[in-house]
Amino acid sequence: MLDKRRLSRVIEKMTTDCLLITDPISIAYLCGKKIEPGERFLGLLIGKEIEPVLILNQLFRFSDELGIKIQYYKDTDRITNIISRFIDKKSSLGVDKIMPARFLIPMMEEKIASEFKLGSYAVDHTRAIKDACEQELMRAASHINDLAMAEFKKLIHEGVTEVEVASQMLGIYQRLGASGYSFEPIVAFGKNAADPHHMPDDTVLHEGDTVLFDVGCVVNGYCSDMTRTFFYKKYPTPEQVEIYNLVRQANENAEHYCKPGVRLCDIDAIARNIITEGGYGEDFTHRLGHFIGTETHEYGDVSQMFTDLTVEGNTFSIEPGIYHPSILGCRIEDLVLITKDGCEVLNHYPHEIEVIK
Amino acid sequence: MLDKRRLSRVIEKMTTDCLLITDPISIAYLCGKKIEPGERFLGLLIGKEIEPVLILNQLFRFSDELGIKIQYYKDTDRITNIISRFIDKKSSLGVDKIMPARFLIPMMEEKIASEFKLGSYAVDHTRAIKDACEQELMRAASHINDLAMAEFKKLIHEGVTEVEVASQMLGIYQRLGASGYSFEPIVAFGKNAADPHHMPDDTVLHEGDTVLFDVGCVVNGYCSDMTRTFFYKKYPTPEQVEIYNLVRQANENAEHYCKPGVRLCDIDAIARNIITEGGYGEDFTHRLGHFIGTETHEYGDVSQMFTDLTVEGNTFSIEPGIYHPSILGCRIEDLVLITKDGCEVLNHYPHEIEVIK
Repeated sequence: MLDKRRLSRVIEKMTTDCLLITDPISIAYLCGKKIEPGERFLGLLIGKEIEPVLILNQLFRFSDELGIKIQYYKDTDRITNIISRFIDKKSSLGVDKIMPARFLIPMMEEKIASEFKLGSYAVDHTRAIKDACEQELMRAASHINDLAMAEFKKLIHEGVTEVEVASQMLGIYQRLGASGYSFEPIVAFGKNAADPHHMPDDTVLHEGDTVLFDVGCVVNGYCSDMTRTFFYKKYPTPEQVEIYNLVRQANENAEHYCKPGVRLCDIDAIARNIITEGGYGEDFTHRLGHFIGTETHEYGDVSQMFTDLTVEGNTFSIEPGIYHPSILGCRIEDLVLITKDGCEVLNHYPHEIEVIK
Repeated sequence: MLDKRRLSRVIEKMTTDCLLITDPISIAYLCGKKIEPGERFLGLLIGKEIEPVLILNQLFRFSDELGIKIQYYKDTDRITNIISRFIDKKSSLGVDKIMPARFLIPMMEEKIASEFKLGSYAVDHTRAIKDACEQELMRAASHINDLAMAEFKKLIHEGVTEVEVASQMLGIYQRLGASGYSFEPIVAFGKNAADPHHMPDDTVLHEGDTVLFDVGCVVNGYCSDMTRTFFYKKYPTPEQVEIYNLVRQANENAEHYCKPGVRLCDIDAIARNIITEGGYGEDFTHRLGHFIGTETHEYGDVSQMFTDLTVEGNTFSIEPGIYHPSILGCRIEDLVLITKDGCEVLNHYPHEIEVIK
């Protein structure tokens, strides 16, 4: 059913006359129904002066359940002709960030609007502010992720491979009440932990190895995402402890700084300065965090480039890391929720150095 | 490793000075490596006059294994600045069909090229012509699909639900040697078969029901896709037999017509005319088929709108259907491969009316 409150929040933020939304997740956010059109066109056209209309292939039939005007088209129709019926040629048209070139370029060539702009911000920024119900679901997903992390640790034993560990994670999540992964889990042993995007392979675990888990699940459509770095059988060396504690301090100071009205780039700087001053700035190769919700990576970065201010209801990751091939690869990640006057860390799995026996 | 033969086939077909390819599957087709950049930019820039360059976030590090120049960027870099280093502002730039607006519109606003065109055809049309090795993999995937169809039939018994049947399919595919689904299987009982995109639900099977399976698997990265419509315990009524035979005749006549150098819309017409003359044209609501390869739906339609000519090495589906809510929903689908002087039907599961006891 069309969510008129969400729709009016999006319309308020629009900077073009019309906005054509093609992301099925944004459409589900506004209409309450996930439609998977495959390579066929799906669009929700909205604007201050027009009645919202959903443009949909006739293969996907709905009755009145969506509470929105639907314009069906056939495989034999030209999409630009269908869309242009609802747009005044003199108006400006925003499109969302994922609109593919195969739809966008023909619309431009046929000049169905006077101007084409990236209009994603209105819907993306609305989605980035979670309402009370969404916040509850984000808490639930991270709670299950905390429980799962404790279970994943039990999969660790001498001689096990990364793939063997990873292959048991989905079952554990499902037993705990999640519907699935929010992304393919990262399980990295030893030097593999120094590759931030390592995918599980046949690497075998040995005493003294690092064990990095970057994992998340989906609960009622909302995502979790957390990283912990453990040590197998041996307490880390002094150099490793130094790196671990820098990452931990970067994580905790950044989380402590989170509150409404601060620049996201400043949160990144808190963590980055700690790691840089510790002498490992070159080994922290990525942004501090990303927004998250019904998608694992949503619009919004915690990065040097992203100057937007935090708003109550934002949920994002804080995930500093140091990737030093010869000493240690380490990342500690939590999700946080910006509250009225501060922030709530959604993950409660401890940050202390932990040696798996 | 960069496949120079494939690359030169793409370059030959280009109509712009440069082409920026962003589809990870097309990049894997040309470079031999599937890279999943998430929401980060990944692009392969090619052209007649320039050395190919892969533009990649530094989080994804490769040594020389790809045999191609790589330009790494950081999360803090502006993508348009990185891309524009390799493109003469006076040259025309093609982009592929999936390039998202969040990259395309800034490139246009910053005028990094003199003209922007949809240039997907060069790479999509090259991918649509399967070489001998790819043809072998397409055969293997459809062979396993044939074997699986025979197994799926055994899951059918009084009182079973669609979801119960569907949930066992992945295991069967994997035992037969497939790595997974090429798409979520459609299992539709009774009236549900009259919805071409029905997803399995808790509908219970009863005597006299139709049983429609639209299923496919992935084998060594290549996809299969086949549909059969069975009847449970009771032989179909004369009206149902009439519809079934029309669909079968449409399928077989269209397949018989397939050879190099015919218009894809004419193949569609063969099937559509049979169904229309049989009085059910309104109930055949979709195109006759789609191209298929490493993706289930690739560039290329067998539809009224698609006037391209077939070429040796094309692989696509032939899947006529009649969706009549009160009599029968029925679809019969095979994959075909265009050969030197005709076509090879890749599926061998019979078309005869079959009653599951």
